[in-house]
Amino acid sequence: MNHDPATPEKAAAGRLRRQRPADTGEWATSLTRIAPNEVEIRGYPVDELMGRLMFSEGIYLLLRGELPTPSIGKLFTAVLLSSLDHGVTPPSTLAARHVASSGSSLNSAVAAGVLAFGAYHGGDIEAVMRCLQEGIAMHHAGMSYEDAARTLLEKHCGAAAPPPGFGHRIHTRDPRAARLMQLAHELELDGEHCRLLRVVERVINSMPERAGHPLPLNIDGAIAAVCGDLGFGPEIGNGLFIISRVPGLLAHAVEEKLTQTPMRKIDRDAAYYNGPARRRLPETRK
Amino acid sequence: MNHDPATPEKAAAGRLRRQRPADTGEWATSLTRIAPNEVEIRGYPVDELMGRLMFSEGIYLLLRGELPTPSIGKLFTAVLLSSLDHGVTPPSTLAARHVASSGSSLNSAVAAGVLAFGAYHGGDIEAVMRCLQEGIAMHHAGMSYEDAARTLLEKHCGAAAPPPGFGHRIHTRDPRAARLMQLAHELELDGEHCRLLRVVERVINSMPERAGHPLPLNIDGAIAAVCGDLGFGPEIGNGLFIISRVPGLLAHAVEEKLTQTPMRKIDRDAAYYNGPARRRLPETRK
Amino acid sequence: MNHDPATPEKAAAGRLRRQRPADTGEWATSLTRIAPNEVEIRGYPVDELMGRLMFSEGIYLLLRGELPTPSIGKLFTAVLLSSLDHGVTPPSTLAARHVASSGSSLNSAVAAGVLAFGAYHGGDIEAVMRCLQEGIAMHHAGMSYEDAARTLLEKHCGAAAPPPGFGHRIHTRDPRAARLMQLAHELELDGEHCRLLRVVERVINSMPERAGHPLPLNIDGAIAAVCGDLGFGPEIGNGLFIISRVPGLLAHAVEEKLTQTPMRKIDRDAAYYNGPARRRLPETRK
Amino acid sequence: MNHDPATPEKAAAGRLRRQRPADTGEWATSLTRIAPNEVEIRGYPVDELMGRLMFSEGIYLLLRGELPTPSIGKLFTAVLLSSLDHGVTPPSTLAARHVASSGSSLNSAVAAGVLAFGAYHGGDIEAVMRCLQEGIAMHHAGMSYEDAARTLLEKHCGAAAPPPGFGHRIHTRDPRAARLMQLAHELELDGEHCRLLRVVERVINSMPERAGHPLPLNIDGAIAAVCGDLGFGPEIGNGLFIISRVPGLLAHAVEEKLTQTPMRKIDRDAAYYNGPARRRLPETRK
Repeated sequence: MNHDPATPEKAAAGRLRRQRPADTGEWATSLTRIAPNEVEIRGYPVDELMGRLMFSEGIYLLLRGELPTPSIGKLFTAVLLSSLDHGVTPPSTLAARHVASSGSSLNSAVAAGVLAFGAYHGGDIEAVMRCLQEGIAMHHAGMSYEDAARTLLEKHCGAAAPPPGFGHRIHTRDPRAARLMQLAHELELDGEHCRLLRVVERVINSMPERAGHPLPLNIDGAIAAVCGDLGFGPEIGNGLFIISRVPGLLAHAVEEKLTQTPMRKIDRDAAYYNGPARRRLPETRK
Repeated sequence: MNHDPATPEKAAAGRLRRQRPADTGEWATSLTRIAPNEVEIRGYPVDELMGRLMFSEGIYLLLRGELPTPSIGKLFTAVLLSSLDHGVTPPSTLAARHVASSGSSLNSAVAAGVLAFGAYHGGDIEAVMRCLQEGIAMHHAGMSYEDAARTLLEKHCGAAAPPPGFGHRIHTRDPRAARLMQLAHELELDGEHCRLLRVVERVINSMPERAGHPLPLNIDGAIAAVCGDLGFGPEIGNGLFIISRVPGLLAHAVEEKLTQTPMRKIDRDAAYYNGPARRRLPETRK
Repeated sequence: MNHDPATPEKAAAGRLRRQRPADTGEWATSLTRIAPNEVEIRGYPVDELMGRLMFSEGIYLLLRGELPTPSIGKLFTAVLLSSLDHGVTPPSTLAARHVASSGSSLNSAVAAGVLAFGAYHGGDIEAVMRCLQEGIAMHHAGMSYEDAARTLLEKHCGAAAPPPGFGHRIHTRDPRAARLMQLAHELELDGEHCRLLRVVERVINSMPERAGHPLPLNIDGAIAAVCGDLGFGPEIGNGLFIISRVPGLLAHAVEEKLTQTPMRKIDRDAAYYNGPARRRLPETRK
Repeated sequence: MNHDPATPEKAAAGRLRRQRPADTGEWATSLTRIAPNEVEIRGYPVDELMGRLMFSEGIYLLLRGELPTPSIGKLFTAVLLSSLDHGVTPPSTLAARHVASSGSSLNSAVAAGVLAFGAYHGGDIEAVMRCLQEGIAMHHAGMSYEDAARTLLEKHCGAAAPPPGFGHRIHTRDPRAARLMQLAHELELDGEHCRLLRVVERVINSMPERAGHPLPLNIDGAIAAVCGDLGFGPEIGNGLFIISRVPGLLAHAVEEKLTQTPMRKIDRDAAYYNGPARRRLPETRK
């Protein structure tokens, strides 16, 4: 009576159960080797990486097993920067602030925020990755991108809900999504995932019911396409969002603890921004 | 009947209660400004940061309010790289793997790992920061670094437990700590915190009872001194460890889900490393 | 491009989106009414419940909206007692102990344990509830329980994995499951869910490949059937397991903090029981 | 350089480090014995407890090692019922609802709620227990309860903050606290902790600055005194609040998932109660 054959864990588990003998207890990990006075990540001594790699390159190495090329490193860095923080309104930020407001520890507040990255909050990255894979398979089977896009939309979308990767509570044009797709193009790292997503966007917005109120590509969709073309699998998609967002959760938890009364009412609509006014990067940074 | 006047939250709260009128509900945040089609972090449009900043520079900007100089950016990057992962033995990794093994979601596994960053696991960063601040104050009051170090050790340490920032379950010389202190020196960013920590290390290891088994500076201690000199406050110390470690927790959770049988016995001593053998960075990276 | 139409939240959300106007912000809750000096749970003043209800009856009232009858209260109490604790081997217990061992707070340790109640650890309750509902629908459509059971098994089970609700890592006969089914029968509260589950058990164990090694009903399966007959929906199934298990997680976290060295290696196979020897309830309790 | 000698874990760890030999890996637990087809809690087969104990009695047994007397069982049940739920305004409830609203799993939502039981939210139970112990020690050393109360208040309280165990965001008279203290008295289970707390309450409210606006005993204070007299130690105080509150967190998470739009704005002041009107327990329950 398998209730959820779709769950990737269940599926993976099924495979593994058949592959493996009775659990011997001995098991392998390919991430990090620890020995007295030695810490090697994917074979590289961590002290040798320090001062030579970007943090994002170290993350890529840990997740993928090899160092990124400079252009891949640059694009992956942009992926992580894109979701660094989204202000006080997301449920993840509010969960973290409510926990911080109760006098719990910083790590408890960050953990509560991470728990809010559910099917509706970052979860679209995995969803879009799986859909794009499905569409690319159709394309390889001879279908045009346009027909693949239409097939995906018919198959997966009710008229009601917007497809994952499109639409936003606040933005009609997500500046992060546009910038990330543009960077992928400039760096010549946009492949089939990006191409198909572009077509899906065009198909959606050419629908009569969308006339006048276009449905924008959002940052989840852009991350999914770009990271799909970088070779990341759907099973890690939401994980990239977690890594990107943790510094923001931390910053909100610290701000809550240092500047607010404990146990206060946290009304997201009563918040105002009192930080620096809009500014440009110094020329040296461009 | 205030049970724990030492708690920073309680103290902060006390101050705030006296400062503030009855909670009006309106409140300020200085991190991120969100408006339709606009996301500004500390005043910089996030889409302008993408492709121009390192992830670590974005994190620094979010936490500190201003962009780091190139050398500060380089040192802060090394801080984040230093704790990227420490293999399968830490309780945080094992908590994340046990949750992943039960079929829970990736973010649940990462959250469980983050919850293990307690007083004994990353918590020393804040502890060392507070001690160094105390010692630096003594120095400013006219005491020599050496006397300040001795005073701190007498005041805070039983003979039994090693002082926070020193000693490690596995390493007799923590390669990450040595490298981080060296980088701070090379970049001319080592200040009073680093200097005092060096003296504390010398004093500890000149104690008769240490003869033959020196007590090494560990990565928590090095991060505390380096970040103290970078101007980070103790209240955020453990937060830097959380940011640094989350990618490792994620990588372990993904590896557990994709390669292991659910609900298995996870024996940390039965794990072997089957990743790439020790290797050097390509010359172009040095 | 809806990736996971099976997700109950997605489905519910779809329905709600169509039903509701744009979010006005005003919203209803039917659980607890709070007013100055008044706390009413489902309409009953909580101070009036204190001293008059069992804790389990209060939980039932909160979850279901009405007080249980005495016999329902007795059976529901047995459901909650059944999973109070399962020793040191489950991943939930080990996650809680690893977090407690790192010096984190009690609530962090309990939260980490709760996060381990995933698809493979308590998750079968919901799975079995959904399967039994499906089978009962077949029965109402004219199928015999036996044929419904066979259909469910053919439809949902690979030969590889045991069906949810059956089999256990440790027990060949789960004493809790047997007792719970017996109590439901004695209290005349066993209905279609229990009946169908009994038939499923018989069908499974009459399979030739099971000859010699019967597959026992486990406590997840028994809770699912009994609570299904009590009228609980699948969406809350795992929640009953959480409520039942939290006291055990707490007891392990406290024991870890008070009796063990922080940051120790926690080897589940190196644990021995040093509590009271097997004993019987006093006659007055029977 | 011990930063936080007050931390109970650090202190306990210090003691343990001195007591114990090098970690052999073998370790003891006195909670639950598991063997094939046997689950014994504190020596009692769990299947024998099912149908014979109240859930609260099982929890008491697990935490304390012995069965409660009938009157202790009745009082402990009232303790657990007292905090079953406190509506939509506490940060724990809002953290759980924000996580549920993001499409995360039930156990993630409950875990996030549990993480909000910090120093200001349930944390007072431990605080009050420690203060009462301190005052009782003064009394045993010959001081009157009145003088002990005054000494505690002078030692621990700024004029600013109300002492832990007194005052409430919403209630001027906490109906749960009054009822719990009354029950302890009726059952003749109120001892030194309850007596001292009563005196502290009288002393506080006889202060000139309190004239006109008395500071009521809250439920945290009442639980602390009652459970102190039942022999619970401060280290488990907050744990009792966690056990009591988890069913409420679960009920809110389920209600959020089943009745609300995902990712909605959750404004605690826009919630209205639409459950049953105020009602009395049936006579048979009194």
